[in-house]
Amino acid sequence: MQWKTSLTKIENEKTFIHGQPLEDLVKEKTFVEVVWFLFKASWPTPAESKLLNTMFGSVIDHGVGTASAMTARTTASTGVSVQTAVAAGILALGNKHGGAIEGAANLFKGIPDGADIAAFVKDTKTSKKRLPGFGHRVLAHDTRVNILFVVAKEAGHYGKYCIFAEKIAEELAKQSSKPIPLNIDGAMAAVLLEIGIEPEIANGFFLIGRVPGLIAQIAEELKQNNGLRRLEESEIVYE
Amino acid sequence: MQWKTSLTKIENEKTFIHGQPLEDLVKEKTFVEVVWFLFKASWPTPAESKLLNTMFGSVIDHGVGTASAMTARTTASTGVSVQTAVAAGILALGNKHGGAIEGAANLFKGIPDGADIAAFVKDTKTSKKRLPGFGHRVLAHDTRVNILFVVAKEAGHYGKYCIFAEKIAEELAKQSSKPIPLNIDGAMAAVLLEIGIEPEIANGFFLIGRVPGLIAQIAEELKQNNGLRRLEESEIVYE
Amino acid sequence: MQWKTSLTKIENEKTFIHGQPLEDLVKEKTFVEVVWFLFKASWPTPAESKLLNTMFGSVIDHGVGTASAMTARTTASTGVSVQTAVAAGILALGNKHGGAIEGAANLFKGIPDGADIAAFVKDTKTSKKRLPGFGHRVLAHDTRVNILFVVAKEAGHYGKYCIFAEKIAEELAKQSSKPIPLNIDGAMAAVLLEIGIEPEIANGFFLIGRVPGLIAQIAEELKQNNGLRRLEESEIVYE
Amino acid sequence: MQWKTSLTKIENEKTFIHGQPLEDLVKEKTFVEVVWFLFKASWPTPAESKLLNTMFGSVIDHGVGTASAMTARTTASTGVSVQTAVAAGILALGNKHGGAIEGAANLFKGIPDGADIAAFVKDTKTSKKRLPGFGHRVLAHDTRVNILFVVAKEAGHYGKYCIFAEKIAEELAKQSSKPIPLNIDGAMAAVLLEIGIEPEIANGFFLIGRVPGLIAQIAEELKQNNGLRRLEESEIVYE
Repeated sequence: MQWKTSLTKIENEKTFIHGQPLEDLVKEKTFVEVVWFLFKASWPTPAESKLLNTMFGSVIDHGVGTASAMTARTTASTGVSVQTAVAAGILALGNKHGGAIEGAANLFKGIPDGADIAAFVKDTKTSKKRLPGFGHRVLAHDTRVNILFVVAKEAGHYGKYCIFAEKIAEELAKQSSKPIPLNIDGAMAAVLLEIGIEPEIANGFFLIGRVPGLIAQIAEELKQNNGLRRLEESEIVYE
Repeated sequence: MQWKTSLTKIENEKTFIHGQPLEDLVKEKTFVEVVWFLFKASWPTPAESKLLNTMFGSVIDHGVGTASAMTARTTASTGVSVQTAVAAGILALGNKHGGAIEGAANLFKGIPDGADIAAFVKDTKTSKKRLPGFGHRVLAHDTRVNILFVVAKEAGHYGKYCIFAEKIAEELAKQSSKPIPLNIDGAMAAVLLEIGIEPEIANGFFLIGRVPGLIAQIAEELKQNNGLRRLEESEIVYE
Repeated sequence: MQWKTSLTKIENEKTFIHGQPLEDLVKEKTFVEVVWFLFKASWPTPAESKLLNTMFGSVIDHGVGTASAMTARTTASTGVSVQTAVAAGILALGNKHGGAIEGAANLFKGIPDGADIAAFVKDTKTSKKRLPGFGHRVLAHDTRVNILFVVAKEAGHYGKYCIFAEKIAEELAKQSSKPIPLNIDGAMAAVLLEIGIEPEIANGFFLIGRVPGLIAQIAEELKQNNGLRRLEESEIVYE
Repeated sequence: MQWKTSLTKIENEKTFIHGQPLEDLVKEKTFVEVVWFLFKASWPTPAESKLLNTMFGSVIDHGVGTASAMTARTTASTGVSVQTAVAAGILALGNKHGGAIEGAANLFKGIPDGADIAAFVKDTKTSKKRLPGFGHRVLAHDTRVNILFVVAKEAGHYGKYCIFAEKIAEELAKQSSKPIPLNIDGAMAAVLLEIGIEPEIANGFFLIGRVPGLIAQIAEELKQNNGLRRLEESEIVYE
């Protein structure tokens, strides 16, 4: 089986990323710049670095009550390694929780230029399809979206996908009785398309931002020394 | 079951981390600063930010040939989501590959002040114990270690654990016929102890750095459109 | 958060499954009978037990060369627990490898009674859609399919879904130049529908059969004491 | 990289396990017999089959309240595949929950013949070490242990490891104020050693038994159509 790569090369005990010695990179660049370089093989402008910083920071943690945090903490309470507990937390990032970016990116990528967004949204509502990247269980309006789009504009990456996303949100507001805002997943999807990231790995950028949050949740769980988590009998309803 | 937390609070549709509104944090701070804040509830100095940037960048990727990259790519080739493939890659970060930081941190933390390091190393060699954080399959000397320690000094975080680590490496060099250098796992373990991170979550800091590398490996696998990976018959030896 | 269940109850230190004391079950019944009871809340006939035995046995292992076995072994070689290595192996069971049963079950369930299968297959070929449960990378004809259907007939569970599956295979043979046989995933999907298993958990029945195989692969890896797996430089092509 | 195997061979489109055609095996043998054959390369007696049936059945499910069931269900509620949710559930089988069999097996294997068990237990208690395989959060006496040992005797596999296990339990009863019974993990560890299974894969036998239970829990979660699980604010205590 052949393993072809143009990403990272180990030669004479040195690591090269896209041909650059990793040890030079880490001396001169921030982590987020190296992340950009890893995916783009070019260096970001300061505004583009700011864009990644904003994106990753926006999703770093959303509290103990999320499915992924609960999963990471419950798993950690059974005595496994932090890697294992993080992996379990990541597995809980399905399309209903943090994992909708791929779907939203495919949605935006599939809209032809000049499409009639009002009609598109109407069709969607008629066929009762859910639009990935829109709606939020808790938030009626997600201010993280505005912040991300402002920074995307500054970096020159507010383009047609962001416009699609905002137009869909506008139409949803017009055509719906309850709020179905553009959420952070949808906004990330649009921005990731603008900077040339493929939908199939778009959820990965959520992971880069969220993994520190999962680890911090695990750290708190272990520090509290709660012992093995299990439901109390009062929390179970036998039917 | 009670879930106590002092980490992240959601209130009136806003997210607060250690009492600070997340939306303010992402406007003003870099991702790596927010990571520091998440674990320490205080803000890093510029030199401390540099320390985290160096640490995460140093381990961002080590090529397609590592067990974790192979696992992430093989898993991705079966048609699963990027989250699933990243989780599988993380599960391949055992104590022989990226997962030795916890062991090394426990090792350094267990050494009493004023301990006789020469005697300690001698005992270890006599009992044929392996020291986590020392030795490297490929590299005779890992320059990433020096780079990390230089930055740790600049940040005021080169302390007793780093000194233990370097002394053990010196003694191993004296007492061994083949090179058993301090590796990046060991150096990270020492530095993480210096900045107050518990051993039980220390491997998590490797994950923060490596997750982008796993995603980039998956991105390359999917872009190559290799189809399902499986061994060719010529690679299998039936016994 | 409420956790409702009618599956398993713990009362006065005893475990009850669908109201039956587990300790009685394990004294009187085989494992496969208890598995049936767990999902169906009724006891299988001997022919139905035989059907589960055949299904699970048919997929127990398919060699070291499969993506899931490679993943489980590579992961185990890094020093993690057998649970972790099994979980990694399971994550490599995507829709291109062992994980197509859900898709095939949804396909068969979606076909209306009296549908024109020839036209359906023609449409599929015209639109170049792949049919989950059909085609095999190695096998031109999978004898495990026949064996499973024979036992399904004996158990009274060869019904309309099995007939759909075989008709589609016949049409594919007529309309295609190369063999696209019904594979074991497709046959399992049909049989699972016949016995009332929902598509959304159908891949789980593959897992029940395959988990022992993954563990046996891990056992062989650890017994061989190969050390950490990584690619040799000769296996990597730098582009 | 070489992949050596003597387990499963694919030749001329046929699968052979330890040299036997898989299609013959599944026609003639039960699943549990094939599992035994996979690990032992020999066929079990009826009493040995009964032993595996009892072992796997004993741990098939322990209710929604366990860490692994909660994890599997919470993960499934986010919209991931059944494979992903099962893998997450398995990751929650740490040494405090289902994953103590390896530790217990190593414990029993390390006891020399003729050891003074009373003194051994006393030492353990003095040094406040926990013994894997002993103690239970809920059960004062685990009747599944007796049942397993009875069947082990019938199969001729009640030997020195089972005796060690029972002697340690007796001494713990004498020397402790609260009950620390031999639990099902400890009993499985002893029996697995008797039949020649290595400690490093012993937890795998728990998985074979438990995976159907995890899938049944996931099935119930999906059928209930609960939507995304998250904590209610009333379940969170902000400190």
